[in-house]
Amino acid sequence: MTFSFKVRKQDTKTRARLGVITTPHGAIETPAFVPVGTQASVKSLSPDELQTLGVQLFFVNTYHAYLRPGLSVINKFGGLHAFMGWQGPIITDSGGFQVFSLARPKYVPQDRGEDRPSLVKISEDGVEFRSHWDGSLHTFTAESSMQWQWQLGSDIHIAFDDCTSYPATHKQAKISMERTHRWALRSVSEHQKQANTHKKRHKPYQALYGVIQGSVYEDLRVASAKFVRELAVDGIAIGGVSVGETKTEMRDVLSWVSPHLPEDKPRHLLGVGEIDDIFTLIAYGMDTFDCVQPTRLARMGRLYVKKNKKHEIDITKKIWEKDTKPIEPGCRCYTCTHFSRSYLHHLFRVRELLAYRLATIHNIHFINTLVLDIREAIKNGVFLEMKKIWAYNK
Amino acid sequence: MTFSFKVRKQDTKTRARLGVITTPHGAIETPAFVPVGTQASVKSLSPDELQTLGVQLFFVNTYHAYLRPGLSVINKFGGLHAFMGWQGPIITDSGGFQVFSLARPKYVPQDRGEDRPSLVKISEDGVEFRSHWDGSLHTFTAESSMQWQWQLGSDIHIAFDDCTSYPATHKQAKISMERTHRWALRSVSEHQKQANTHKKRHKPYQALYGVIQGSVYEDLRVASAKFVRELAVDGIAIGGVSVGETKTEMRDVLSWVSPHLPEDKPRHLLGVGEIDDIFTLIAYGMDTFDCVQPTRLARMGRLYVKKNKKHEIDITKKIWEKDTKPIEPGCRCYTCTHFSRSYLHHLFRVRELLAYRLATIHNIHFINTLVLDIREAIKNGVFLEMKKIWAYNK
Repeated sequence: MTFSFKVRKQDTKTRARLGVITTPHGAIETPAFVPVGTQASVKSLSPDELQTLGVQLFFVNTYHAYLRPGLSVINKFGGLHAFMGWQGPIITDSGGFQVFSLARPKYVPQDRGEDRPSLVKISEDGVEFRSHWDGSLHTFTAESSMQWQWQLGSDIHIAFDDCTSYPATHKQAKISMERTHRWALRSVSEHQKQANTHKKRHKPYQALYGVIQGSVYEDLRVASAKFVRELAVDGIAIGGVSVGETKTEMRDVLSWVSPHLPEDKPRHLLGVGEIDDIFTLIAYGMDTFDCVQPTRLARMGRLYVKKNKKHEIDITKKIWEKDTKPIEPGCRCYTCTHFSRSYLHHLFRVRELLAYRLATIHNIHFINTLVLDIREAIKNGVFLEMKKIWAYNK
Repeated sequence: MTFSFKVRKQDTKTRARLGVITTPHGAIETPAFVPVGTQASVKSLSPDELQTLGVQLFFVNTYHAYLRPGLSVINKFGGLHAFMGWQGPIITDSGGFQVFSLARPKYVPQDRGEDRPSLVKISEDGVEFRSHWDGSLHTFTAESSMQWQWQLGSDIHIAFDDCTSYPATHKQAKISMERTHRWALRSVSEHQKQANTHKKRHKPYQALYGVIQGSVYEDLRVASAKFVRELAVDGIAIGGVSVGETKTEMRDVLSWVSPHLPEDKPRHLLGVGEIDDIFTLIAYGMDTFDCVQPTRLARMGRLYVKKNKKHEIDITKKIWEKDTKPIEPGCRCYTCTHFSRSYLHHLFRVRELLAYRLATIHNIHFINTLVLDIREAIKNGVFLEMKKIWAYNK
C-alpha cells in the first residue's frame, strides 16, 4: 500500500472537508488531531491507550529522535514503528523547528542566563547546532533531514525548512522564506533519491509534505503557497503559525494561504490545536494538525470541559477537593468513567504519577471526540451549525 | 460476606501453606504478594492494570490517607474503594510505622539537617506528630487508628503498634513491645465497638490483625507471638522485620515466631517482599506480605529477571542501549510482549513518564507470577523442589 489522499466530502459553506489519507501503516480519517510524542512517547501513555483513544497518527520530532536514542539505535529496529511499538501511521518533522527554537532566548531556561552564545549557526548549506543534552556539535541539512526521516521510517515526512523567528521584519521573513524554498527543492530531490533506493529494496513509499512559511505577511504567505503547490510533494504543511503569533494572525495566515492550496493534496497545520483553534483551522481546510497543548495542559492539571469559557478546569484548585463527579459528566473516557474530580485533585496534589496519565487520557479523548463529531457534522452538511452550537455552549 | 480464612493445603516439609482469605470485596488466594499504594495509588498504575496483573490485595497507608486527601474527603465516597476506583480487597496499616519512621534520623532528608527537634512525641495514650506536608500537629491513638481504618473501609485493619526502632537494646525493645501489647488490647476493644456499630447499620465486617513486635530478641518475639495469638483478632501481622534488619535476622524472627502462630488465622508479614525473601517467608508460613521494593526498584530502572544473581538488571546502563530483546525473554507481561530493553533504556534515559509504568508492570508481573508458581508448587507438593530449582537458576 502506498500513500494516497481522497476528499470524501467538501463542505459547501466553508473550506472544511472530510477525507482519508492512506499510508502503508493504515488510514487516517480527516480532519484529525495528531498528538505529539516528542521523545518517541506521548508522555505517560502506552501505544495501546493511544489506539483506544482513537489516535490515528502520531507525531515524532526528528531532532529528538536523532539525538536520543539516536539513529543507530532506531536503525536496529528498522525504524520508529518497531522501536516504539506503535503500528499506526507516524509523521515526523524536519528537525528544523527544534533546532531553531533552541536559539531563541524565550526558550532558554532561566538558570542558564540569556547572554550565552547562540547554540545555532545557519548557513545556506544547513544548520549547525549544539545538542541540548550534552552540547555536542551536529549539522542538519535538507539532505540529511530527508535521509534521517527515511531511516526513522515515518509515513509522512516534512521538508527541511528555515523556521522564521517571531516577530520578524518583512525583510527577515522574506530571506527566511526564500531559504525555505531553496531547501524545499533540495528536500524533494533527496527525497526522490531515497524513494528510488527504497523502491529497489521493495520497501514501502514514505510521503513528503512541503512547508509554507512567510511569517505574518500576506504577500509572502501567498508566494510561499504558490511555490510549494508546484513542488513534487504528497502534501502541504503550514509552518510558523504556532510560534508566538496571535489567534487573529493564525486566522489571517490560513485565510491568505487556503485559497491557493491544491484540493487533491492533504494539508497539515504544524503545532496548532488548542480547543479554540479547531473549528477555525478545519473551516480553512486543514486536514491534520499536531499540538502539544492538550497533553501539556493535562500534565499541569488543566482538563478540558465543554461548558466553560476557557474550555478547561484547573483540577489542582481546592474547590475540587470533595467533588465526587467525574471531570466532565457524560464523558466516556476511562478517566471519567472510573474516577472523580476529587481523586484527580488528590493525585495532582500529592504528585502521583497516575495523575498525569489519567489527565492526558481525558484531554486526548476530549479533543478526539470533538474532531470525530466535526467529521460527522461535515458528513451531514452541518459543520457551521455545529460550530455555532459549540460557541453557544460556553 | 464476612471475613474468613481457610487452609487448603499444608506443605509437609515446611510451614508453607496454600489458603484463601475471603473478604467482603472478594477472595485472596494465598500466599500472595501485596503491592503498596502509599498515597491511595500504586505509583503509575491504574486499578484495571493491577487487576490484569493479578493483584488481589492492595495496601494503603492510613497515615498518608489521613493527611492527604484526609478522612473528610474519603468519607464523601464512603471509603477508599470508591475513592480509588479499586473494587478488590484493601489492607490498611495502623499509621504507626509512618509516624515512627518520621522520627528516625535515617529517614530525614539530608537538606533538613538531623538536629531539628523530633517530629514525634510518644506517650502511653498515643503518638503526637507533625505532618511531613505542612508541620500541622496530629495525634494517633489505638482508638483513633481503629476508627479511621473503619472509615477508610479497608477489608483488613492492623492494630495500633509501637514500631520498635532499630537497633534497639533488649530493654528498649521490651518497653516498646509491652506498649504494643497494651495498645493491642485497646485496639481490639475499639474495633469491637466499631464492628457493632457497623453491624447495626448493616454494613459489612472489616477484619483486624494483631501485631507481633520484639525486635531481634528471641524471648521477646516468642512472648509477643504468644500474647497476640490469644487476642480476639482475625489474623496476625508481624511487624518490625523490615526496618534495618538483615536477611539473617528476618529468618531468625520468622523461625522463632512461626511455631507459635495459630494455624487457623491468616498471617501478614509487614514490609517484606524482596525476591530473595519470598521463598523464606512462605516457607515459614506467611500468607500475605507487602513491600514497596518491587515498585520502587522499577521506578529506578531495576527490573526483575530470573537468571541473574541479584534477580535484577539495571536498564539505565548503556549495555542495553541497542538490545532488541524484551526485559525477560519469555515473560508474558504487557511490557515484555510489546517493548525492548532498548526502548525501556531510552525512556529512562530521557525520563519519559511511560518508563516508570512499563517497569512497574514488569516487576509486579514478575513477583506475582513467582508467587502464583509457588502456590502451584505447594498444591502439587513440590514447594521445596521449586525453591531448589529457583536457586539453581541464578
